[in-house]
Amino acid sequence: MEDKTPLYERFASELEARILEGTFPEGGRVPALRESAETHGLSLSTVLQAYRLLETRGIIEAKPQSGYYVKYRPRKAALGPEARPSSDDPTGVSIDDLSMRLFRDKHDPDFAPFGAATPDPDLLPTAKLNRLLADLAREGRFAQDSSTMPEGCSELRVQVAQRAFGYGCDVGPDDIVITAGCSEAMSLCLQAVCSPGDLVAIESPTYFGILLILESLHLKALEIPTNPITGMSIDALGFALENHPIKAVVAMTNFNNPLGSCMPEEAKVELASMLSRREIPLIENDIYGELHFSERRPGLAKAHDREGLVLLCSSFSKDISPGYRTGWVAPGRFLDRVRKLKMAFSNGTSVLPQLTIARYLETGGYDLHLRKIRKAYAGKSLMMRRAIDEHFPEGTRIAEPFGGYVIWVRLPGGLDSLLLYREAEKSRITIAPGCMFSPTGKFLDYVRLNAAAWSERTEKDLARLGRLVKDLAGA
Amino acid sequence: MEDKTPLYERFASELEARILEGTFPEGGRVPALRESAETHGLSLSTVLQAYRLLETRGIIEAKPQSGYYVKYRPRKAALGPEARPSSDDPTGVSIDDLSMRLFRDKHDPDFAPFGAATPDPDLLPTAKLNRLLADLAREGRFAQDSSTMPEGCSELRVQVAQRAFGYGCDVGPDDIVITAGCSEAMSLCLQAVCSPGDLVAIESPTYFGILLILESLHLKALEIPTNPITGMSIDALGFALENHPIKAVVAMTNFNNPLGSCMPEEAKVELASMLSRREIPLIENDIYGELHFSERRPGLAKAHDREGLVLLCSSFSKDISPGYRTGWVAPGRFLDRVRKLKMAFSNGTSVLPQLTIARYLETGGYDLHLRKIRKAYAGKSLMMRRAIDEHFPEGTRIAEPFGGYVIWVRLPGGLDSLLLYREAEKSRITIAPGCMFSPTGKFLDYVRLNAAAWSERTEKDLARLGRLVKDLAGA
Repeated sequence: MEDKTPLYERFASELEARILEGTFPEGGRVPALRESAETHGLSLSTVLQAYRLLETRGIIEAKPQSGYYVKYRPRKAALGPEARPSSDDPTGVSIDDLSMRLFRDKHDPDFAPFGAATPDPDLLPTAKLNRLLADLAREGRFAQDSSTMPEGCSELRVQVAQRAFGYGCDVGPDDIVITAGCSEAMSLCLQAVCSPGDLVAIESPTYFGILLILESLHLKALEIPTNPITGMSIDALGFALENHPIKAVVAMTNFNNPLGSCMPEEAKVELASMLSRREIPLIENDIYGELHFSERRPGLAKAHDREGLVLLCSSFSKDISPGYRTGWVAPGRFLDRVRKLKMAFSNGTSVLPQLTIARYLETGGYDLHLRKIRKAYAGKSLMMRRAIDEHFPEGTRIAEPFGGYVIWVRLPGGLDSLLLYREAEKSRITIAPGCMFSPTGKFLDYVRLNAAAWSERTEKDLARLGRLVKDLAGA
Repeated sequence: MEDKTPLYERFASELEARILEGTFPEGGRVPALRESAETHGLSLSTVLQAYRLLETRGIIEAKPQSGYYVKYRPRKAALGPEARPSSDDPTGVSIDDLSMRLFRDKHDPDFAPFGAATPDPDLLPTAKLNRLLADLAREGRFAQDSSTMPEGCSELRVQVAQRAFGYGCDVGPDDIVITAGCSEAMSLCLQAVCSPGDLVAIESPTYFGILLILESLHLKALEIPTNPITGMSIDALGFALENHPIKAVVAMTNFNNPLGSCMPEEAKVELASMLSRREIPLIENDIYGELHFSERRPGLAKAHDREGLVLLCSSFSKDISPGYRTGWVAPGRFLDRVRKLKMAFSNGTSVLPQLTIARYLETGGYDLHLRKIRKAYAGKSLMMRRAIDEHFPEGTRIAEPFGGYVIWVRLPGGLDSLLLYREAEKSRITIAPGCMFSPTGKFLDYVRLNAAAWSERTEKDLARLGRLVKDLAGA
């Protein structure tokens, strides 16, 4: 079956497709005639015919002495109904589809962004970071590849170790591996301590990012009941350890996402010792640890780890910059394995964000910044809880977080949060439905709201959300 | 068994350990008395006793009105024999240990760095990148997290798509995922198309990075004979596909590392069609593609892919900056899976290197730069081959690469390259022994040398290496 379309038409279609997709943006130059002829193995006259065809159609134009330029690129995105596919079919919605949509919606200025757990842009030290970055670039600090070790730059590891010492963790610079955010830290840890098919104990509810990682790594999850105040149940975990072949435990001892719970110090001690008796590793996610609402930073199970069994993960995505994608792990006795996995999968983390964050930690007033944003997030959380109180119907229950900036809400009357998610999306409000926080679809009548997005301006969006809840719950 | 050491002594040891490890560098401040007392739950007098003890030992000193500072940090590294462990026991050396040591040695200025395939720092556009980075930072382009989509910044994807069009690949910006270098691109691809336990056909010899990834992902490798001139044998691959349950094929069609081979255009067409008939994905690694020695850039199997079965991987680590850790993949029909894995494992790539490289590709004279470095690497490769000809004994065989900058050398008389590696390391020369390039320990009498490290200055190191070969081979 030979294609009968003339060669020049086929090439014109190919170039047009590239223009529609944005490879060659409006106003930009397209490859010169000779260049196209060479790279595509066509004669100069075929390419000229193709370009003339596109010129006739108004898509490109010739500029004398300069070449061909894109005159008009039809904007295909956001026009067709396919831009938000399967929005009306909740049955087929998976956690990864939902996550991807939270990601996209948070970039859409039309949306009230209560879905993704993104920090408030106004509470990031962006201007200072840009100044430090410009300084470092001018100083020529980003030279060659001098810092591309799998474990990351020593400048940043020293800073992380100093802070870890400050909260009682026995961790030196050489015990740390810098990662692409906390997600990579967690996924390296799980790969270091588990094999495909293994069973991992997780909090219930838990951050859906963990569920995505477990699924991608072919690991199985066992949900341990987790209390909105005291975190993962030590009793339930003890029972589970007796009765199931658990290979690792994953917990956010400080400020579980979505609960905002904080495991008491005694429970952290017990958690560490319970796992050390069984030689089972604990992957402790402390990403929200610095965002405590109380005076003192709570401790960590890692501080009570004598066997090197606790792998402590954190990142700077919540308090410094999400876009830098820079986190770290102190993997205890699994250091070598984590470092080797890091080497295999990416050879190391980009030096630019590492050195910039190191400089910021050295000189940028990080502690002052933390004091400021702790207060701000505590305030936003409180105001959002008050607004939910006011605008949501009777029967709504609200968790009272100890830190972080997300609010876990139980809807009244068993209202299906996916239904709410769909209706809210139509009203340009994005929320995280409860089913995302459990691999077995628990928490159907819960939602997680991002209080970092709280402002006086967004109160009206929350009020609209409250009215939707009322309508749907028939309250 | 209670620890009888007084509390202050224990705390002093802990702080001293942190100083030895570099958490608190020489001349730097250690935490204030009150701060230490608080974070470690000790009385002020216990902390004071501990600090006085360290002061007596000359490790810290008090500065009036200011606090305590590190006075002397003994340098533990590089003194003890443990700094280079098991150097004399080749039997226990694994590919990941060897890779880690190549990584470390390349940062050691005492070593002639013929081991790791690092680009020549003088052939990277570092100064220009630093200027662009400073500009971008001053313009405030690195704002908040506006670009943290799993697939990466559109600015960079547009640039990659423009270049891909230039070498005949049907790839738009939305078909691309930006990654942490080519390693992450490869590992995401393998995870997208394989499950643990699956069999993957690889080149033999192959880049050891692939072996590390396969091992980390619990995948099995099947080695396909690969010719120093024409690359992976199409005949052998055809036979293997008939007789083994191969789930994916990994190949560097342009400039296999370590061979420098280039698969002819007809073979690329045949490779693409052979795999499309069987619906088997090809992971095509084009990291050296731009570094061709001939006039024209060779084509890609991806350009002949009608089924979306070719996942094309590349990066800017060889020609722009290894430390930026920025690469990309055009995963064809596996786009969704790759994007979801990227989301699960790291949420996206750091925006700093992405936007800087995008700006460089837009305005920095990339094509001019490429022309310059192609010529330089072709020259270095030639000069290194000539020097090997001159300094190595009779019976040595040298591959003649078509691009890239590594040289594959067969040692005379079946000389064990691990033995050479060990002896060379003693003489402060680092090489990549042949056993690293095969999962079954083939190529024991081969070495890979990095011609990017070639200069008039390093010729004497190569001459020393040649004498070592002579001595060991008894030539």
